[in-house]
Amino acid sequence: MTQAKESRGNAVVNKEARDKEVVKVLDDFGESILKNIDKNESPKFKVPLRSLSNIHFDRAANLLRLGDKVSSRNFINMAHSKKFMQSLLIGAKCKELVSRGKTASIRELYYQLKHAIANTKENTFEDQGESDPLIVDLETSLKVLREELHLKADDKGTIIGNIVIEDSGDFIDCSKLGRSGLSVPSIIEHYKFHKVKADYVLVIETAAMFDRLVEEKFPQDNNCIMVSTKGQAARGCRRLVHRINRELKIPIIMFTDGDPWGYYIYSVIKAGSMALAHESERLGTPETRFIGMTMTDIEEYGLQKVTEKLKDVDKKRISELLQYPWFQNKEWKKELQMMSERGVRIEQQALASKSLEFVAQEYLPEKIKKGKLLP
Amino acid sequence: MTQAKESRGNAVVNKEARDKEVVKVLDDFGESILKNIDKNESPKFKVPLRSLSNIHFDRAANLLRLGDKVSSRNFINMAHSKKFMQSLLIGAKCKELVSRGKTASIRELYYQLKHAIANTKENTFEDQGESDPLIVDLETSLKVLREELHLKADDKGTIIGNIVIEDSGDFIDCSKLGRSGLSVPSIIEHYKFHKVKADYVLVIETAAMFDRLVEEKFPQDNNCIMVSTKGQAARGCRRLVHRINRELKIPIIMFTDGDPWGYYIYSVIKAGSMALAHESERLGTPETRFIGMTMTDIEEYGLQKVTEKLKDVDKKRISELLQYPWFQNKEWKKELQMMSERGVRIEQQALASKSLEFVAQEYLPEKIKKGKLLP
Repeated sequence: MTQAKESRGNAVVNKEARDKEVVKVLDDFGESILKNIDKNESPKFKVPLRSLSNIHFDRAANLLRLGDKVSSRNFINMAHSKKFMQSLLIGAKCKELVSRGKTASIRELYYQLKHAIANTKENTFEDQGESDPLIVDLETSLKVLREELHLKADDKGTIIGNIVIEDSGDFIDCSKLGRSGLSVPSIIEHYKFHKVKADYVLVIETAAMFDRLVEEKFPQDNNCIMVSTKGQAARGCRRLVHRINRELKIPIIMFTDGDPWGYYIYSVIKAGSMALAHESERLGTPETRFIGMTMTDIEEYGLQKVTEKLKDVDKKRISELLQYPWFQNKEWKKELQMMSERGVRIEQQALASKSLEFVAQEYLPEKIKKGKLLP
Repeated sequence: MTQAKESRGNAVVNKEARDKEVVKVLDDFGESILKNIDKNESPKFKVPLRSLSNIHFDRAANLLRLGDKVSSRNFINMAHSKKFMQSLLIGAKCKELVSRGKTASIRELYYQLKHAIANTKENTFEDQGESDPLIVDLETSLKVLREELHLKADDKGTIIGNIVIEDSGDFIDCSKLGRSGLSVPSIIEHYKFHKVKADYVLVIETAAMFDRLVEEKFPQDNNCIMVSTKGQAARGCRRLVHRINRELKIPIIMFTDGDPWGYYIYSVIKAGSMALAHESERLGTPETRFIGMTMTDIEEYGLQKVTEKLKDVDKKRISELLQYPWFQNKEWKKELQMMSERGVRIEQQALASKSLEFVAQEYLPEKIKKGKLLP
């Protein structure tokens, strides 16, 4: 594991070398099972617990992390044996994928293994709800990122701006993609970055705001790269933001709606998510800062007439956020409490009430110039 | 209207000329209201009815169409006057957008007009639910496409393959975008097509299947362009498929899951949708044909073990589809009835149970070679 762990720290990941490492990790996993059998022990492996009790917020690093608690999965245990067998099938299939240079969606993996044992009417997996958690078990157990197992979830997101990305031999100049931009795929491990000229990356929650800023030529006028997450950011998008920040040392600024949902989307980009706490270190970008929408924007820019009333579900979400350790600083508590007290939320697109150009010509440049960013 | 209508038939739309036409249409709309006032009549305009009673399926053209029934919207009618005033505000804002060469999301339009009348506490629009239907009223009333009013909805979809698209001065070679592809924006009216080399466009429902075929180099090996709709196709995607088919005379082949949802997504690409029946002619592509997944695929390719049981909601949807006039042909009735009888559906990704490569190396090329396509 040490070797694998070290390579994660490297700025530029050598994908081919990492593939070899991952195959080795999977081989070692198989060997350890064989050793159990040779010793007449029950075949078994350890899986880190992913329950809330084993997730903590690392304040120094500003990242959600998985703790040290582990459970053991034993073949000779009626409650474990099916999952044990399923886990080995997934491990073997992943080794095949990585060795052959193939990737598969987690749904394809499910179908590939659904009826994997010949001469039986028994399905290996009844539905994808059985295979998905075991994939995460394998990731956490082996300390290998899902993308490194050549498995992928859905993709979502667009990038535009002054960066040349090498993707499978093509050199893609993201500043020459008109108003369309590059689709961010679910796996971006193979991306190599070339010729970057940008002061920061602006990560934007809504596709419509991204379009607005493209129309206003914001990236050209402000020398920035823009990424649209289109709601909660998919893994590919989070990994892309992370890699641009780490490898190219470019600051990340996030721009979401002024509501608990937008603030949570921000926190996932910054600190990682609870469901993927084991991967925060590779998906989270603690250096990210937040530009808006904030509750103070409402007075500052005279947006009182274009707020929206909070619904019960919004209020409930605010209370939840106020409990999360990573919102426990004075700036965020103030925002969330103000939101709760006023009973309103404010959307990015509400800035259009000033003028369509306002967000690009005044709001964003002014806030960046004055350093009015939340931690 | 005649001039506008004619220009729609042209292969290559001259965007600048069309913008001028649309401004003229909006001017004429305003003039007609002024004439009412000059004549001491109640200011009014006609809006085609969009209820089901006024939507019919044009079997010859294979398109959903809006009928001739219209209603009148009168200013001097308590039930109409607010909507009348709101419609004029939207018309004026659209004229401003088109004249200035700006586009706006329908949410931005709502915020721009939410509090449009000075010196009053009254909001012009309380929520977007008020402005959205009036936009459609205006589109249908003036026979102008929403995109031509410079208004846009959400974007979704990716394109990859041997086509060079000119977008805002950039020439984008979609065969040189690695495994990422070009994000299809919500408005593609400004796209110009150059250097196209493709036997057909394969339109794919799921992002994961699109990724699979990208990984298998399907576009290169089969000389085709691929478009991913990622579920129900957004307007930009539908319009792009339509324009490639019409202007470049390239056949369209669609590939969805074998379930009522996939079949409906196909029918929308082909015949248009009920909600947008007034735009079928510009968004629908009647020449589209369907490659799979079909119910007969299950036996043909031995996929019995990887079907999924129909849920009640699936069964209900099948019954609905069996009522729609555009599914009234023997091929589609057979598919839907077989699905209903067997009680199963089959996903695109279930083909992975054969092998990851199967879909690219056998399933698709074989079906296309043998012309096994549904109408």
